[in-house]
Amino acid sequence: MTKPTEARGKLGILTPGMGAVATTTYAGVFAARRGTAAPVGALSELGRLDLGNGKKPLIKDILPLAGLQDLVFGTWDPYGHDAFEAAVEANVLSAKDLLPLEEEMRSIKPMKAVIDRNWVKRLEGSGNVKVTKSKWDAAQTLIEDIQRFKAENSCDRLVMIWTASTEAYKEPGAVHQSVTDFEKGLKEDNAEISPSQIYAYAALKERVPFINGTPSVTIDNPAFHELAMEYGVPLAGKDFKTGQTLLKTILGPGLKARMLGLSGWFSTNILGNRDGEVLEDPESFKSKEISKKQVLESILESDLYPELYKDAYHKVRINYYPPRGDDKEAWDNIDIFGWMNYPMQIKVDFLCKDSILAAPLVLDLTRFMDLAHRAGARGLPQRRLHARA
Amino acid sequence: MTKPTEARGKLGILTPGMGAVATTTYAGVFAARRGTAAPVGALSELGRLDLGNGKKPLIKDILPLAGLQDLVFGTWDPYGHDAFEAAVEANVLSAKDLLPLEEEMRSIKPMKAVIDRNWVKRLEGSGNVKVTKSKWDAAQTLIEDIQRFKAENSCDRLVMIWTASTEAYKEPGAVHQSVTDFEKGLKEDNAEISPSQIYAYAALKERVPFINGTPSVTIDNPAFHELAMEYGVPLAGKDFKTGQTLLKTILGPGLKARMLGLSGWFSTNILGNRDGEVLEDPESFKSKEISKKQVLESILESDLYPELYKDAYHKVRINYYPPRGDDKEAWDNIDIFGWMNYPMQIKVDFLCKDSILAAPLVLDLTRFMDLAHRAGARGLPQRRLHARA
Amino acid sequence: MTKPTEARGKLGILTPGMGAVATTTYAGVFAARRGTAAPVGALSELGRLDLGNGKKPLIKDILPLAGLQDLVFGTWDPYGHDAFEAAVEANVLSAKDLLPLEEEMRSIKPMKAVIDRNWVKRLEGSGNVKVTKSKWDAAQTLIEDIQRFKAENSCDRLVMIWTASTEAYKEPGAVHQSVTDFEKGLKEDNAEISPSQIYAYAALKERVPFINGTPSVTIDNPAFHELAMEYGVPLAGKDFKTGQTLLKTILGPGLKARMLGLSGWFSTNILGNRDGEVLEDPESFKSKEISKKQVLESILESDLYPELYKDAYHKVRINYYPPRGDDKEAWDNIDIFGWMNYPMQIKVDFLCKDSILAAPLVLDLTRFMDLAHRAGARGLPQRRLHARA
Amino acid sequence: MTKPTEARGKLGILTPGMGAVATTTYAGVFAARRGTAAPVGALSELGRLDLGNGKKPLIKDILPLAGLQDLVFGTWDPYGHDAFEAAVEANVLSAKDLLPLEEEMRSIKPMKAVIDRNWVKRLEGSGNVKVTKSKWDAAQTLIEDIQRFKAENSCDRLVMIWTASTEAYKEPGAVHQSVTDFEKGLKEDNAEISPSQIYAYAALKERVPFINGTPSVTIDNPAFHELAMEYGVPLAGKDFKTGQTLLKTILGPGLKARMLGLSGWFSTNILGNRDGEVLEDPESFKSKEISKKQVLESILESDLYPELYKDAYHKVRINYYPPRGDDKEAWDNIDIFGWMNYPMQIKVDFLCKDSILAAPLVLDLTRFMDLAHRAGARGLPQRRLHARA
Repeated sequence: MTKPTEARGKLGILTPGMGAVATTTYAGVFAARRGTAAPVGALSELGRLDLGNGKKPLIKDILPLAGLQDLVFGTWDPYGHDAFEAAVEANVLSAKDLLPLEEEMRSIKPMKAVIDRNWVKRLEGSGNVKVTKSKWDAAQTLIEDIQRFKAENSCDRLVMIWTASTEAYKEPGAVHQSVTDFEKGLKEDNAEISPSQIYAYAALKERVPFINGTPSVTIDNPAFHELAMEYGVPLAGKDFKTGQTLLKTILGPGLKARMLGLSGWFSTNILGNRDGEVLEDPESFKSKEISKKQVLESILESDLYPELYKDAYHKVRINYYPPRGDDKEAWDNIDIFGWMNYPMQIKVDFLCKDSILAAPLVLDLTRFMDLAHRAGARGLPQRRLHARA
Repeated sequence: MTKPTEARGKLGILTPGMGAVATTTYAGVFAARRGTAAPVGALSELGRLDLGNGKKPLIKDILPLAGLQDLVFGTWDPYGHDAFEAAVEANVLSAKDLLPLEEEMRSIKPMKAVIDRNWVKRLEGSGNVKVTKSKWDAAQTLIEDIQRFKAENSCDRLVMIWTASTEAYKEPGAVHQSVTDFEKGLKEDNAEISPSQIYAYAALKERVPFINGTPSVTIDNPAFHELAMEYGVPLAGKDFKTGQTLLKTILGPGLKARMLGLSGWFSTNILGNRDGEVLEDPESFKSKEISKKQVLESILESDLYPELYKDAYHKVRINYYPPRGDDKEAWDNIDIFGWMNYPMQIKVDFLCKDSILAAPLVLDLTRFMDLAHRAGARGLPQRRLHARA
Repeated sequence: MTKPTEARGKLGILTPGMGAVATTTYAGVFAARRGTAAPVGALSELGRLDLGNGKKPLIKDILPLAGLQDLVFGTWDPYGHDAFEAAVEANVLSAKDLLPLEEEMRSIKPMKAVIDRNWVKRLEGSGNVKVTKSKWDAAQTLIEDIQRFKAENSCDRLVMIWTASTEAYKEPGAVHQSVTDFEKGLKEDNAEISPSQIYAYAALKERVPFINGTPSVTIDNPAFHELAMEYGVPLAGKDFKTGQTLLKTILGPGLKARMLGLSGWFSTNILGNRDGEVLEDPESFKSKEISKKQVLESILESDLYPELYKDAYHKVRINYYPPRGDDKEAWDNIDIFGWMNYPMQIKVDFLCKDSILAAPLVLDLTRFMDLAHRAGARGLPQRRLHARA
Repeated sequence: MTKPTEARGKLGILTPGMGAVATTTYAGVFAARRGTAAPVGALSELGRLDLGNGKKPLIKDILPLAGLQDLVFGTWDPYGHDAFEAAVEANVLSAKDLLPLEEEMRSIKPMKAVIDRNWVKRLEGSGNVKVTKSKWDAAQTLIEDIQRFKAENSCDRLVMIWTASTEAYKEPGAVHQSVTDFEKGLKEDNAEISPSQIYAYAALKERVPFINGTPSVTIDNPAFHELAMEYGVPLAGKDFKTGQTLLKTILGPGLKARMLGLSGWFSTNILGNRDGEVLEDPESFKSKEISKKQVLESILESDLYPELYKDAYHKVRINYYPPRGDDKEAWDNIDIFGWMNYPMQIKVDFLCKDSILAAPLVLDLTRFMDLAHRAGARGLPQRRLHARA
């Protein structure tokens, strides 16, 4: 990577999927611009860097990030609602917070979406969907959408972040081994290609960095890395880890730092939003489950600490529970052991709000990816390439 | 600091106070020597260092720490029981684990203790106590105890770690401003001098590193730093942070790393051991409370992150609850807020065992302090000196 | 008791203290009249009676209770706000629920209150307070208030329910032994007489039933029973038991029904409303603590079940915790034991809303006491008289 | 029913299935006989009856129950272990409690069991199993077992209680409509007949009362009621309801008594014993799930209280989680609502021990059924007959 260029002009943030996460992101950015709500949770706004010399300046003061004022949002969604209606439907924000932003929210109207019920079974909406002859044609119309959005909004640069539902889990196949294979697959309407991959393909062809906000395997394959390297575009993202997984990434290293052993970790989630409904489908859940389990395993390194983690039993459950709406609850029971193998227990109950935790990550990830792009980053991070080998 | 010398011969570990923590430490070390229980929780046994080159060797393989086989324990306690009897009384370990160690445990008999009911109100035991004319005389007999223990056990080196009760909270006074003031105070039997300070003084005079395992203010003053610098001995320790505070040091930085705000943190503890009884006394609790509160404040840096932490309300309660014995339970309710200031809650219930969590820290701290001593460390760590200014 | 007379005309409900409980009660009654919110929690509205013949009619269909349409509210409060302002201040109800009721709420304006800082230390408000020469004079002005309120509102009957703060705990004294003693005490401004007792005296003299909604000892003495018997008025009430105590009255009998033993019950509360602030004062808390402890003891009957309950350790803590406002949280840890004395644990976390739980009790208690009055009930219930002996 | 005859001579308790529940029952009875552990949880030992006249005598002092000294245990189990070995394997009781009972426990040796993997999939053991030509033959050998056991142990009376695993859920079929149909089915080896039904049939033919300790549908059909009426034998039992369901039967009526509404109840269980393993199988779980759901519905009567319970969402999950063994943990999240429909939450975490809770029920149920038998009770209770219609 090289020193990044300055952030000039507008940055367009493209969000395929305009549900609770996307609309909460828009609203928070609009509110932060007006100064009516602090952008809590956003490293790119409130975070500081410890320079080691006693100084801890704001990150945004020392890195050339796109300014809040320069962001503009675009989206695709199978429901035809504008962002205000979608936010009301999502029921994350109170009327008090949403009403003052009505005009800006109404101005965001979704483009027609590419959907495929084979990949997300419990999806409803169908009023605002592209009808195309093949996945190749679908990709071409997305490319046109991107070009048109950029021109109409006078954007200098774009970033795309997947904020739609988690797709069914499928290991990468033959069609994902090279760009040639993948483009052949698009033309042949290959069933192994998921909607998120069509969006990611369109983004890369337009030299737009792509971020995956779900645990789906979208970009984890050689074809996408090849294309991203060729077009000089960075790729990133794997699940926002907003609730229980966030706590695992906090508690796991903490236990390990104290050399405390783990005999079992049971995690259950109850949530009542569209995400919960989608994840009740066992195939979509498999993507999530694998992602959630890997997090803990990569932290604990049971091969290095067999006395502590070799026999750890880890189980994750997700339950659709309508009474809660977007208010997710994650309950963890953690069975640990200490000195002389004596057992202890930690129970954590996290009453969280999915979109409230995810929205600042959308803001951070898009700004940092735009910066990385300007600094010459391309392809997948080394660690993930390695993990795939 | 310089390269430490090798660890040759025996290391004597002196533990003023032979209650649950001390006896659990002894038992675990004896069991680990026999290979019947892994020393879980001990960095100096199981911990590894990431060298950055893909290698992560055991810490004990690259640092010249005292070997498990070379440790020998000495103690002072107002109850006259041997370590086996004291462990049975403490009721931390099961008969199954304790009985095989009876012989080694019985061989540890406490020397007569220096106690002062003005500093720890709810302490009982009085059968094994020194009767001296002044605090100065008490210090001299402790010095003789140390010399005799070292000789009788053929120790090469010693370390002292305070494993007795938390003392009442008192700000350092005039008597703590210099070694001269302090020694004058000892001779005049100054009421401002606590028992732990008499032990620490005796240790330093014998060039023995001193570690404080409680939140008492023992060594946090200019006199002790001066004496430690003069005799070339390192000082360390401030509360073991085994239960709720451990979780605070894990969760606090985690929340901050994600720029999540905090509106309130309520912590309550129930415990039924001697520590719980002592901490019911408001004066002893004050030491603990101040220590517990500072931990969170120093993590959150509310001056740098006023939007997130300026208004955080922090309350800590400790309750003596006999039904639990040494099985401590720490319940935390954490009120956080995220994007657009939306509130969320985290509740943590930690069913922990005080001594099981503290024992490996005794092992680690004494071994690392012995190493630091051999590497030329002396006085208090810079950060604490700074904090005192 | 005899068959009650019919409920004709208006019933005036007098609430000394117009804080969160009183205003939430008014609002809910107004909303129920309009049919915009069901009176959830009110036995007198939704409750049914099992007649044993397969029929379970609504209680209000078989007992001659005062109709919702016939209720009218009066109040005294040291703050001069009307009920709408007081409800906004109490912050229990959302704007969405409160705004449609503004007109009715504004029409309730508090009469000048009798207060005494010796009985409730942490009370603020002082703008709307009676200035009188003696407690006797204070009682006379309250009697005039009652008469005026009844006339102005064309009430057929009245009931008074104490919805102000818990007072300091004091055992009944010489002044509470007879009506003669008490009236002498009023005239001499005896310090043993609390404000709630002045209100209760005024109510009884006007033949108005009196209910105590707090754990204060107000009416638990011979003088009040004598007066109530003489004037033919029923007395009732002792703490609303809305949170943790409610759960104790549910769980306690459940454990006992299964002959499960209890070794300890630890209860802690966090709440941030005025009630929490008042109860931080140790003297006010004592009233609450005694009330809370008695509940469990009277349920468990440890004299009859010594193997199960003789050694039960019971501890109750209340903590003022501002971040929560009226949203109270009650955490219980219950240590039980079963077959062969094996221990088990139940932990309950109740995220409750104080006033939401108390309001329907105000409605029920006032209606049932009005009914009891019409049926000829008088004095304290037998069980309480017995308990006092 | 008539006045029961006196309890003379020995009562044999037959337990098909000798796992954790059965062995814990035996051990507790043996310990109670010696006076080394109180029979906590047993109504028939510690329970009292409120006679209303101020007297509350022990139930066992006023009802002619079989004495503890007169109980003798028999069992069938596919594993050939004696009761001591089975108890060690079950790992419920500590060595300290089990070792003194070794001799009595070893004297209980299981008869060969009737098993069928189609009804309990995850069952292992096979060393001690009957090999018969048909279910009819299996029933005949069980009848012989019962006769032999009664003779060899000089029993005056017998009771059988099913303490084996929960079977797969199946609605009663044609084969369960009459005794004639059922006996024809036995001879034809009809797949609709479960092992527990073969045991129950054998018991009834020998005029032995039968109790079902699991949620299986064993006796809920016309054939068994007909047979029980003909032979004059009472039937009872449907799940022991020892953990989460116990709490539901305590909390559900409590909420209803206060007219609090319910929007959702989410229940999850983690347990690591054989019961947990069996219930991971979706078919076995279905029996449990239906039983668990019905409990709440029958309590809440949503038809009578539609405003409160019509829209309640109820979900139950059971998770096999080996780290816990017999130590079951049940976590409930209960979403309730009160006055003006304001939401509140109750969370309950029950760290329970399955067999510790079940064992006293085995003792109570067998003694009370023996009493009912002597008082002339026969067939299913009226309520269940009604429920079936």
